[in-house]
Amino acid sequence: MGGPPPIVTLLSDFGAGSGYPAQMKGAILGLLPEARLVDLSHDVPAFDVLAGALLLEACVPRFPARAVHCAVVDPGVGTARRPLCVRDPAGRLLVGPDNGLFTAFLGTGARAWTLAEGGPAPRPASATFHGRDLFAPVAAWLAGGGDPARLGPEVHDPLRLPWPEARWEGEELRGSVLLADPFGNLLTSVRAAQLPAGPYQVVAAGRPARPVRTFGEGAPGELLALVGSSERLEIAVREGSAARLLGAGRGAEVSIRPEAGGEGWPFPGPRRAC
Amino acid sequence: MGGPPPIVTLLSDFGAGSGYPAQMKGAILGLLPEARLVDLSHDVPAFDVLAGALLLEACVPRFPARAVHCAVVDPGVGTARRPLCVRDPAGRLLVGPDNGLFTAFLGTGARAWTLAEGGPAPRPASATFHGRDLFAPVAAWLAGGGDPARLGPEVHDPLRLPWPEARWEGEELRGSVLLADPFGNLLTSVRAAQLPAGPYQVVAAGRPARPVRTFGEGAPGELLALVGSSERLEIAVREGSAARLLGAGRGAEVSIRPEAGGEGWPFPGPRRAC
Amino acid sequence: MGGPPPIVTLLSDFGAGSGYPAQMKGAILGLLPEARLVDLSHDVPAFDVLAGALLLEACVPRFPARAVHCAVVDPGVGTARRPLCVRDPAGRLLVGPDNGLFTAFLGTGARAWTLAEGGPAPRPASATFHGRDLFAPVAAWLAGGGDPARLGPEVHDPLRLPWPEARWEGEELRGSVLLADPFGNLLTSVRAAQLPAGPYQVVAAGRPARPVRTFGEGAPGELLALVGSSERLEIAVREGSAARLLGAGRGAEVSIRPEAGGEGWPFPGPRRAC
Repeated sequence: MGGPPPIVTLLSDFGAGSGYPAQMKGAILGLLPEARLVDLSHDVPAFDVLAGALLLEACVPRFPARAVHCAVVDPGVGTARRPLCVRDPAGRLLVGPDNGLFTAFLGTGARAWTLAEGGPAPRPASATFHGRDLFAPVAAWLAGGGDPARLGPEVHDPLRLPWPEARWEGEELRGSVLLADPFGNLLTSVRAAQLPAGPYQVVAAGRPARPVRTFGEGAPGELLALVGSSERLEIAVREGSAARLLGAGRGAEVSIRPEAGGEGWPFPGPRRAC
Repeated sequence: MGGPPPIVTLLSDFGAGSGYPAQMKGAILGLLPEARLVDLSHDVPAFDVLAGALLLEACVPRFPARAVHCAVVDPGVGTARRPLCVRDPAGRLLVGPDNGLFTAFLGTGARAWTLAEGGPAPRPASATFHGRDLFAPVAAWLAGGGDPARLGPEVHDPLRLPWPEARWEGEELRGSVLLADPFGNLLTSVRAAQLPAGPYQVVAAGRPARPVRTFGEGAPGELLALVGSSERLEIAVREGSAARLLGAGRGAEVSIRPEAGGEGWPFPGPRRAC
Repeated sequence: MGGPPPIVTLLSDFGAGSGYPAQMKGAILGLLPEARLVDLSHDVPAFDVLAGALLLEACVPRFPARAVHCAVVDPGVGTARRPLCVRDPAGRLLVGPDNGLFTAFLGTGARAWTLAEGGPAPRPASATFHGRDLFAPVAAWLAGGGDPARLGPEVHDPLRLPWPEARWEGEELRGSVLLADPFGNLLTSVRAAQLPAGPYQVVAAGRPARPVRTFGEGAPGELLALVGSSERLEIAVREGSAARLLGAGRGAEVSIRPEAGGEGWPFPGPRRAC
C-alpha cells in the first residue's frame, strides 16, 4: 500500500460489448479492489492468436513495468493447452494460455510458469471461460504482489508462434503484411532498424509505395510507406485505406530495395527503438 | 472512506463510441470522484430489453455485492414508465427504467423503489436521456452510501419480462435460443441444473448437436452443445459460428432427450451453480 | 494529493480495439499513476474533425472542470499543424492538434498555447502517433497540475471550423443535420434556444417531422422532431432510425416554421441550457 495503484490490462477476442470482459473485471475487482483496469483490445479477430500477440507487442511496453497483462485469445480453452504466466526480462508479467500469444515476450531472459492446481491459481469453475475463472484471478493475485514462481512448475518450452520477420535476400529486404489497423494502414514485418540507411524503394502487394516520414506528405490516393508508431514499416494512404486500395491483408508481400545514389536522402532509415 | 473504492457499472444500448456513456460517466465522477467505473456493455441491440436483462444476469453476480449497476435500455424514456431502483436478496443495487431490465434480480426477497421527485434523485434536465440526468446521478448517490429506501415509494409490482425458461414436456426438455454472443455461440434457456444426469441428445434448430465439455473437443464445422460460462447450455462450433451455421438466433428451438443406457457417460449433467 | 483523483478523458478516431488508445493510456499511467481514464469515444469516423468536435462539445461539459481532455482526430499528424492546449473560460483544459477539433471551446475568454519543444512537452518519438508521444504525456502533465502557460507561446489564432449554426431566414429557421448517433437519431444545428416559443412545423430532408417532447410519444415509423440531450433539435423515429428512414446524414436540410395560433402549445420551445 502507499505505492501507485496496481494496473491490470485485458486483451481478448471477446468483443468489448459481449459481457465477457466485464465478467473478468468483476472477478478482478472482487480480489483486488484498488486495481486499475485498462482494456488493450477486445476486438482481436476471433481465435487469431497472432493478431493478439502483435497487439500485445505494441501495447505492453507502453505501460509501467509493474502492470500485469491478462490476455485471452484461447481457441484451446478447456483442452490440454497449458495456462501460463510469463515474466519477460523487463519484469513484465503476462497471464493467459500457452498458445504463442506471448511470443514477443519470450526472448532471452524470460521465464514462464504454468498455473498448477493446488497453488494460488483457482480451479476454474467453467471449462469454457478460463479468462474469467483462471487468468483474471491470477492476474489480480500477481498485481497484488504475488510471486509468479509460486504459481506452479517452471515451463522451459512455452509455445512460440512462427514470428513473421523480414529478411534480406540478396539486394532485397523481403517481408509481409501482418495486420491492417482500423484506418486500413498495413503493419508489416519490416522493422525500422532493418531499413537501409540510404534511400530505398518499396513495393507492397505488387505496387510501388513512396517512402515518406508521415501521412500528411502523401497526395490523395497515393500509396505510402512510412515507419509507424510501432517502429515497423507501414503501408498507408493519406486519409484513406491502404488495405482497401490494395485489396491486401496479412501475408501480402512487401519488399524494399536500396536505391543507388542515396546521398542526402531525407527519410529515416534505422531509427532508435523506443 | 478508507474502505474499498465504490464501483459503478454501466450497461446500455447506446454504443460505446456514441458519447452517451461518457456523459453518464462525467455525471457520476462529478458526484463521486472516487468511483470506479466499469462498462458491462454498451452494445446491447437497440431497444432490446431482454438482451440487456440477460447480460445483467450474466455479469452482475461477478462483481462485489457493493457495486451499483446503472442500466439503460429504455425505449420508454420520458413516458410514464417508472424509474426504478432494485435491491436483490444479495444486497446488489440496480438502477434504471422499470421495463423488465432487472427481471433476473426480482426473485423472492428483492425490493424495489421508484425514484420520486423531491427525494435524492435529481429532476432530469432532459426528457430523452435519463441515463445521464437521472439514473447515473442516483447510481453515484447509492454507490456513495445512499439508502435506496429514501429514493421514493416502494414498488411492489416491478415489471417482469416473460423470462424464457426451458421446460420438460414428457421425455423432452424444450428450450430456445436467447442470444448469440460475438463468436456466434448460441446461449439457450436450458440451465445446466436442468440437464439429465446421464447422457442426452441435443437438437438445435432442427440439427443434432454433440454434447461436449469444451469447445476444443469438436471437429471442424461440427455442431456442439456444452454448458457455457453462464451455466446455460450453449450451441457452438469450434472456432466457428453456430449462429451462422444454423442461420438461427433468438427463439430457435432447442430440445434435449435423455439417451438410454447412460452409465459412465463422461459429460457433465447438473453442475453446481456458481 | 488528498484532493479528488485527476481525470483524463480520451477521444479519437482510432477505434477502441486498435491498441492505439491503450498505448496512450499506458503513457499516461506511467506519468500519472493515479489518473482516472475515461473514454469519450474512439469511434469518431476516421479523419472527421467536425464529428470529433461535436462529440467534445456534447461530452466535455459533463465532466468536472478539473478534467483534462486529450483528443486526437489528426489527419495532419507530423506536418506543420500546431499541437495545441486550450483552456476555455470555465477552466477546462483540452490537448490535441490545432485543426478545429476544439472549436466549441474557443469562445470569448478562451486561451490557447502551442506545445513548444524545450518545454514540458516531450519531443515526439514518432512522426505518426502524436496522440501517444505528445498529447497523452502533456495531458498527464496538465492533470497533475501543470500550468498550460508553461507549455509554449500563446496562440491567438487557433484554427476554428466553420461551425454549423442554424439561422433565421425570413419566417424560417434553417439548419442542417450534423451527425447521426448509433440509433440513427439525427442531431441538427438547430439549438433549443433558437426554437420558436410557440408551436412550429419541422421539415427534415424534405419530410415533415412532428414535434414531440420525447421518443415514446411517436407512433411506429413516424418521423419526430424533439429537443435532445445536447439541447439541439433531433430528428428521430421511436425505436427506429431516422437516418435510415430518410436516407439522410450530415448536411441534410432542416427547417422550422412557426405555426399560426400557437396558444397553449404543449411542447418546449426555448429551454434553459444545461
